[in-house]
Amino acid sequence: MKSYVNVCFLAILAFGDASPVYGGTDMKVRSAQMVNLLLDNAGNVNDTSVWDSLAEMTDLYGHRMTGHIQYDRSVSWVIGDAKRYPSFTAWEEPVTVNVWNRNTEYAQMNIPTRSPPTVDLPMLGLGQSIGTGPEGIEADVIPVETFEDLEALGNSTIAGNIVLFCADFVSYRDNAKYRFSGASMAEKYGAVAVLVQSITGYSLMTPHTGAMNPASIPGAAITIEDSKLIQRMYNRYNEAQKNPSIPNSEKFIKPRVKLVMNAESYENAKVSSNIIIDLKGSDKSDEIVLISGHFDSWDVGVGAMDDGGGAFSAYGALKMIANLPARPSRTIRVVMWNNEETLGRGMYAYTEAHKDEISKHIFAMESDVGNFNPWGMQVMGTDDAIAKLDALGKMFLTTVGGGNITKSDDPPDADIETLCNMGVTCGGFEPLDKYTQAIPLVPAGTEGYFRFHHTQADRMEVLDKNQLRANSVAMAVWAYILADQ
Amino acid sequence: MKSYVNVCFLAILAFGDASPVYGGTDMKVRSAQMVNLLLDNAGNVNDTSVWDSLAEMTDLYGHRMTGHIQYDRSVSWVIGDAKRYPSFTAWEEPVTVNVWNRNTEYAQMNIPTRSPPTVDLPMLGLGQSIGTGPEGIEADVIPVETFEDLEALGNSTIAGNIVLFCADFVSYRDNAKYRFSGASMAEKYGAVAVLVQSITGYSLMTPHTGAMNPASIPGAAITIEDSKLIQRMYNRYNEAQKNPSIPNSEKFIKPRVKLVMNAESYENAKVSSNIIIDLKGSDKSDEIVLISGHFDSWDVGVGAMDDGGGAFSAYGALKMIANLPARPSRTIRVVMWNNEETLGRGMYAYTEAHKDEISKHIFAMESDVGNFNPWGMQVMGTDDAIAKLDALGKMFLTTVGGGNITKSDDPPDADIETLCNMGVTCGGFEPLDKYTQAIPLVPAGTEGYFRFHHTQADRMEVLDKNQLRANSVAMAVWAYILADQ
Repeated sequence: MKSYVNVCFLAILAFGDASPVYGGTDMKVRSAQMVNLLLDNAGNVNDTSVWDSLAEMTDLYGHRMTGHIQYDRSVSWVIGDAKRYPSFTAWEEPVTVNVWNRNTEYAQMNIPTRSPPTVDLPMLGLGQSIGTGPEGIEADVIPVETFEDLEALGNSTIAGNIVLFCADFVSYRDNAKYRFSGASMAEKYGAVAVLVQSITGYSLMTPHTGAMNPASIPGAAITIEDSKLIQRMYNRYNEAQKNPSIPNSEKFIKPRVKLVMNAESYENAKVSSNIIIDLKGSDKSDEIVLISGHFDSWDVGVGAMDDGGGAFSAYGALKMIANLPARPSRTIRVVMWNNEETLGRGMYAYTEAHKDEISKHIFAMESDVGNFNPWGMQVMGTDDAIAKLDALGKMFLTTVGGGNITKSDDPPDADIETLCNMGVTCGGFEPLDKYTQAIPLVPAGTEGYFRFHHTQADRMEVLDKNQLRANSVAMAVWAYILADQ
Repeated sequence: MKSYVNVCFLAILAFGDASPVYGGTDMKVRSAQMVNLLLDNAGNVNDTSVWDSLAEMTDLYGHRMTGHIQYDRSVSWVIGDAKRYPSFTAWEEPVTVNVWNRNTEYAQMNIPTRSPPTVDLPMLGLGQSIGTGPEGIEADVIPVETFEDLEALGNSTIAGNIVLFCADFVSYRDNAKYRFSGASMAEKYGAVAVLVQSITGYSLMTPHTGAMNPASIPGAAITIEDSKLIQRMYNRYNEAQKNPSIPNSEKFIKPRVKLVMNAESYENAKVSSNIIIDLKGSDKSDEIVLISGHFDSWDVGVGAMDDGGGAFSAYGALKMIANLPARPSRTIRVVMWNNEETLGRGMYAYTEAHKDEISKHIFAMESDVGNFNPWGMQVMGTDDAIAKLDALGKMFLTTVGGGNITKSDDPPDADIETLCNMGVTCGGFEPLDKYTQAIPLVPAGTEGYFRFHHTQADRMEVLDKNQLRANSVAMAVWAYILADQ
């Protein structure tokens, strides 16, 4: 099936005032031919190169937490790899990053009826949290479902205690506020620390970390199972207070947790880097199509899914394009952003360093919500641009996937936010759900992603070799078309 | 819908030569009426008593590993609970059990390119394994998929090394042999320890323990993800030896693991107990219908699913029957077996202690493969008995589930094996798959169970409150019918 594309002529791909209008009245025959060659590779099960290369890097270096040496070693691996492609220009750009060190941490609950009575609660401190001091913090735990409930309980119930934010998973957007703002909110009522029920709909005693807004009290995530245990203990104890005749009531204790965290933060700790890899355009090389993923990860697991898959899908796309007989007109640039998981300084550094060529960016894409079967892009841009992208997606990407387009009113991904706000047409590249194939526009369309998100289970086995190749092909198709008109 | 059951007359429920023929020519009207009352409760979402009682016990005491104090504390909880039911006779019977203490254990791999270079491998020592000695065992790891591959590699490759049995999950039956016999097989070729890829089709960095045949070398389970990491490192290293021009080949090292286990075993360590709870029959009380689950668990998680769900479904069934206005003719006996996970001594102790009344056992049922939506029973018995049970299941249990019957040539569950082999008609009570609702007669029909099996994730959240009640109702229906003819 060589001709996926009806070699036809399209109208001007005009992307409105903010981005330059470019080239001709027709889609070049060459573009369509090159896209066909890219699509040929989509089903090539012998090509597992994207997965294999990400596996080699993550097996060697582990995670890539911003500001940590593992990040920089991994950067060297990528630069070394890119330098083996004569058509690539690869370099690092400085980013001054914050550093957060987790150090030793644990949480325990004393349950006298157990043997041993000290029960370990698997946990992960939240990113940017302060530590507890070496003696730790030990206090009763008050389960709270919402911020409204917190306020209603108030200082009289909360002060001196640990708040457990225990809302069940609805969606990442709904639940993340408790992780991000829980400590800031609870400290107002005198809480000494916060625990957060891990943000996921599925757990095998799996703690999920993530960033929190720094506060005067520490925060940590515990498992769904232990959150439920604490709630049952709390309810049982309170019922026994009201009704001491309940059998075994003398055994029911208040849930009390000892939290020990030795976390430390450094604001401007280190000069680290973004990775830039250019495939220079054939004739309009000053104009840029940017495809990207973030390179930094959390310090648990190896950031295979988040966001090795996104960064390496983009990088794999560039390699596929480099293999083609015809170089596209414009430059295609892969960016691997630093510091996405914390303060976005990779994005800000890039925007500043490239401020004189923002207007030359035709399109910017990021992939950071998983690389399962590709679905398409949420696009922030003019209606005209979106209509044209929609037509292109339907024309080229119905076989491999990744061609669906919807309009987003806001920047559709974290690291392209500044570019979007400066008028670059931008797309967030998104997959179908890992398990249900649900589209990503509904909360359940990303549930599979959140089983692994920010956990020690973010390992290579989350990503399917064939799906990762499909992502690279789809990104390559988008990049080539947009770079060649 | 009061009349689930067409109050009709059935033929003699004759169970062949091995079990006594009982009862008149007709099913008693009373039986059918009582079954209707049991079925009335099936959909009562306000009755979460089975789940709640299991949660209270496991929240208080944690796991119930045979021979450990947590087991005995949990027994006291059950006996105390049963004594609050005037119609129950509850007691303990002695079982001399072996004891295996896990103690401190860990596994690490040194990967110099990582920081820190010491990488922790989540693991669980296999039950009955010996320890490594305090210095641990450190050696290169050789991945091996099958026993045939092990033999082919032979002493020249294996001696002095650690064998990793890395077969992917097909079914528990297919894969468990590597866990059970891996050490015994590998020691023949000079291996110093074995690692086993955890027996599951789904992992979030989840180690699964389980028993191994004791050998002269220790054995431990690691996660699927780390098994795959070790295999990739092994393959990369070997490819680099053949082809040193591969980029980064100087960084590829042989996978080498340090295993530290302080496990200890005691053969006849302790006199512990089985739990027996009788609801005495109204007129043929010497005849017994036995329903059961095992009470001991592994020492990770709290044994909620394995086998708290089975033991408490049976116990819940007895409570439901005790609430009925009419006591059945025969005694219904709940047994909570000790020592199932290790040596089956609970079963042997019961068989010995009750040897003079084995012939009075009409039927024996065990539930030990999960308590999700009930499916039915695999039955070892005469064709006539099976046909009658099949008819009864179709008559009574199509609404709540649990009525399907198939013939088993072998004892269908571990702790009723001796009773089955002594001629008691016996059934293994089984659920539909937790996720797919697949029937349990195909390997994929129990895949959901093996996500949690023998892991720290065997917690109350695995069991659904309504499904657990449905299990109790189904077991109660079977028990009542069989006890009342």
